[in-house]
Amino acid sequence: MQISEHLEKLIDSLSRFPGIGKKTAGRLAWHIVSSDKNFARQLAENISTAVEAFRPCSLCNMLSESDPCPICASRDREHDSICVVENSADVQIIENINEYRGLYFVLGHLLSPIDGIGPDEINTPLLLKRIEEIGPSEIILALIPSAEGEATMHYIWEILKDRKLKITRLSTGLPFGGDLEYSSSSTLRSAWQRRYGI
Amino acid sequence: MQISEHLEKLIDSLSRFPGIGKKTAGRLAWHIVSSDKNFARQLAENISTAVEAFRPCSLCNMLSESDPCPICASRDREHDSICVVENSADVQIIENINEYRGLYFVLGHLLSPIDGIGPDEINTPLLLKRIEEIGPSEIILALIPSAEGEATMHYIWEILKDRKLKITRLSTGLPFGGDLEYSSSSTLRSAWQRRYGI
Repeated sequence: MQISEHLEKLIDSLSRFPGIGKKTAGRLAWHIVSSDKNFARQLAENISTAVEAFRPCSLCNMLSESDPCPICASRDREHDSICVVENSADVQIIENINEYRGLYFVLGHLLSPIDGIGPDEINTPLLLKRIEEIGPSEIILALIPSAEGEATMHYIWEILKDRKLKITRLSTGLPFGGDLEYSSSSTLRSAWQRRYGI
Repeated sequence: MQISEHLEKLIDSLSRFPGIGKKTAGRLAWHIVSSDKNFARQLAENISTAVEAFRPCSLCNMLSESDPCPICASRDREHDSICVVENSADVQIIENINEYRGLYFVLGHLLSPIDGIGPDEINTPLLLKRIEEIGPSEIILALIPSAEGEATMHYIWEILKDRKLKITRLSTGLPFGGDLEYSSSSTLRSAWQRRYGI
């Protein structure tokens, strides 16, 4: 028996998040209708406000409430490097480790011919423009080591290789707390080849 | 660097769901602001509509848009049994297996003295009233086999044991697709003790 049309609609909305299946969406939807109505009202309002407020920064392509975004606009950021990431969420993830004080550039996608995402979709002209404007000495490609990430890193390297630029990528290897047994053979192979003295 | 106050608020709302930590909430929030604005508008609207529409059914205590709820109101449901569940979401889960055509009763909580949830919080007076009204022959206690679930089942059994009622609970044992190696010893012990001929 279908219990409620409104609930079905809500479950349908929630299951459109990446990584959230019908079952989790159902659990979330029931939590929403079971809990304090103020929680749900606040959530709906926060979604509406956030989504209306965000647009891409015209300098780095990161979704932001202001243009330029707070990072491009900040006087405290070093203009000596640009960290290239797949999407805006990655910027926050890297900010959280407190290692980096430079600028970012958001591609928006990784190259993925199978999904119809070619060089035109990944905003490299804007990246080149940004590089010319600020003249960094290092480009850090903080992309994931997947087929799409590797292809994208290679493509960007091809475009930039003739410039006087250090082009780096993040280290690959075993994750902390990871197990040898549950590591993929590519992770293990990379960890083996990149082993270092202690 | 904190990237946006609106986004922080949204992450905060989302991380109040059970089982959703700060990290997942961040991922969801970025998905909301990155995706098609119509998706987010629809989601916010579906949340608002659902939460305003739901209240407890006065017969079975399930959250519903109508009172009585569609199940209590249906002429197609058998009045011969009541399935007692912890919360409204459990009703949908049991409906989905298409095994049961009877009525439900939603406790709202399991007994949990440590969380201050005693007999007064689990609505047994309403359950007794419902039993008297419809005179079922079986009460199915579909509660989880945890300390709280067991305590609640025992408590309800104590209340009902002198009535002419069959009181049953769901079978315990190995989950399908489960592994002996990864089963807890209580699951394994239950599976052992309740083994059956094939």
